Amino acid sequence: MTEPAPKQLVRIAELGIDPAQLETFRALLAEEIEASVRVEPGVLMLHAVAMRDDPTQIRLLEAYADKAAYEAHLQSPHFLRYKALTAAMVLSLRLFETDPILLRAKA
Amino acid sequence: MTEPAPKQLVRIAELGIDPAQLETFRALLAEEIEASVRVEPGVLMLHAVAMRDDPTQIRLLEAYADKAAYEAHLQSPHFLRYKALTAAMVLSLRLFETDPILLRAKA
Repeated sequence: MTEPAPKQLVRIAELGIDPAQLETFRALLAEEIEASVRVEPGVLMLHAVAMRDDPTQIRLLEAYADKAAYEAHLQSPHFLRYKALTAAMVLSLRLFETDPILLRAKA
Repeated sequence: MTEPAPKQLVRIAELGIDPAQLETFRALLAEEIEASVRVEPGVLMLHAVAMRDDPTQIRLLEAYADKAAYEAHLQSPHFLRYKALTAAMVLSLRLFETDPILLRAKA
């Protein structure tokens, strides 16, 4: 990715997952990420990691082309499926709006 | 990026910056990121964002090809320059090792 345009939405999500359902959650999240970036033109980046010192703590860095792209994502079938199937697994969810300084990755 | 190989190092850094030096810090960080991803084959991704509710709080998501690539990065001239010039600007620094679940971005 190059310099983010000002209208891009870039956010961090911090999730705490029920340990008993962690493997299922991870599989559903990976499915959702894979589909979103592949199918939706406005989903630019979805990076999900587990904190090593507590793998039930998941962190996401998300980038959307603009607000409309984000709202379309929330209505996509893969996101709605993920949201419904994981509702009882997610014990905590915090969303943080951010302003990108620089996003750089190998091509 | 595709599925991360197990030997990849993916980490999160949380930095708190002296508000009086924030603009200078941001410029030095952006320089360092740009040079690292451009010049170093083993620096796969460096994403830096500022938290909107407190822009002195910076978050980075970093991916290196392996431990050797990370250690080479720490000895690179651009990283050493960044580290020296920002030492007095960084009020707090926490590093978290992570295990990637899935890292996906548009090509």
